[in-house]
Amino acid sequence: MLQTLPRMISLEGGEGAGKSTVIALITKVLRELGESVVQTREPGGTPYAEDIRQLLLADHIEAPAKDVEVLLMFAARAQHVRKLILPSIAHGAWVVCDRFTDASFAYQGAARGIDLQKLELLNQQFVGVQPGLTLLLDVDVPVGLARVDARGDRDRIEKEPAAFFEAVRQGYLTRAQAEPERIRVIDANRDPQVVADEVREIVTAYAQRHLSA
Amino acid sequence: MLQTLPRMISLEGGEGAGKSTVIALITKVLRELGESVVQTREPGGTPYAEDIRQLLLADHIEAPAKDVEVLLMFAARAQHVRKLILPSIAHGAWVVCDRFTDASFAYQGAARGIDLQKLELLNQQFVGVQPGLTLLLDVDVPVGLARVDARGDRDRIEKEPAAFFEAVRQGYLTRAQAEPERIRVIDANRDPQVVADEVREIVTAYAQRHLSA
Repeated sequence: MLQTLPRMISLEGGEGAGKSTVIALITKVLRELGESVVQTREPGGTPYAEDIRQLLLADHIEAPAKDVEVLLMFAARAQHVRKLILPSIAHGAWVVCDRFTDASFAYQGAARGIDLQKLELLNQQFVGVQPGLTLLLDVDVPVGLARVDARGDRDRIEKEPAAFFEAVRQGYLTRAQAEPERIRVIDANRDPQVVADEVREIVTAYAQRHLSA
Repeated sequence: MLQTLPRMISLEGGEGAGKSTVIALITKVLRELGESVVQTREPGGTPYAEDIRQLLLADHIEAPAKDVEVLLMFAARAQHVRKLILPSIAHGAWVVCDRFTDASFAYQGAARGIDLQKLELLNQQFVGVQPGLTLLLDVDVPVGLARVDARGDRDRIEKEPAAFFEAVRQGYLTRAQAEPERIRVIDANRDPQVVADEVREIVTAYAQRHLSA
């Protein structure tokens, strides 16, 4: 069983969904409510985990086997949880995280075909926690990729074909269907201001139920 | 169930057991028998896995959590198996490996206290193979550490206290007791020439039962 962390919010979505803007907004909303916030990201979030991130995202003379990518992703996550997320929450802060475990189910599971039970096993044995709230920015794949191209070079994962990102998107939506209470799907094809308004509304309502004493 | 690779030999042992000399000897004996040999090591053995090794062994601003060390070790091993070990065996070579999965059970399991079932689960799900023969060089901890000190700087793991290496040694011996057919214990406190003679004898007898056609 995973432990739910009410004061952790994760943000998920495919390439070009607008995560950078929205993650900053979530943090801003919480701070306006007088809360202390640690904003972080995956893979990475601590110096050691960021070094694992480098191995995952940089072009390398040798590609990692699919299983290896999974193990590295969960290694970075285990480090992140133990060294940053749990300590921050223990000190009374909120943690706002750009991608978390749902991303492994979408990218490594749905898109790369890793057995979902294998992922669930790593999740239970080495992560053990999940956010209280997850916002999924859902964007049509061509729309998202056009945004990525508009901002410049793609990294190793962003160079995958469009079918890969379609599988990622479906993987995310399947997760959201299975856990509608935790995962809120937000249509990110719309005007950024409309998306921002909806995010602000959801986060404010959620946070007010979990404010610090 | 693990698949046994008859033409893979691993060498195990604590610090200062004399592995460097013995691994070269194993390779030499097989080549004298006319066999093709790929000599490799863990963690590492491929460019990507060697980069994971760097993360594991180098001093870092931030220490990895115990679970993280385990995941990285198995990530390096999974890459090694898929990209070097299985392809080499498929091409008719022997693989001689300086440390393999038994090392994780000794170092991460027995010495760092990681649940052995967690290790077995990673082994089954992400490694899937084991050597046909494993030689365990067993040396008294003070003898081994004196040899390490005589040759210079200790790396991050070599800087652990003596009790750590005592636990490693017992972890290895427990593995050997459980699998006496595969793991041959060699008393490495003895004169190097005596050790070498015994290694040559064991490897020759084993290899003659598994020679290439």
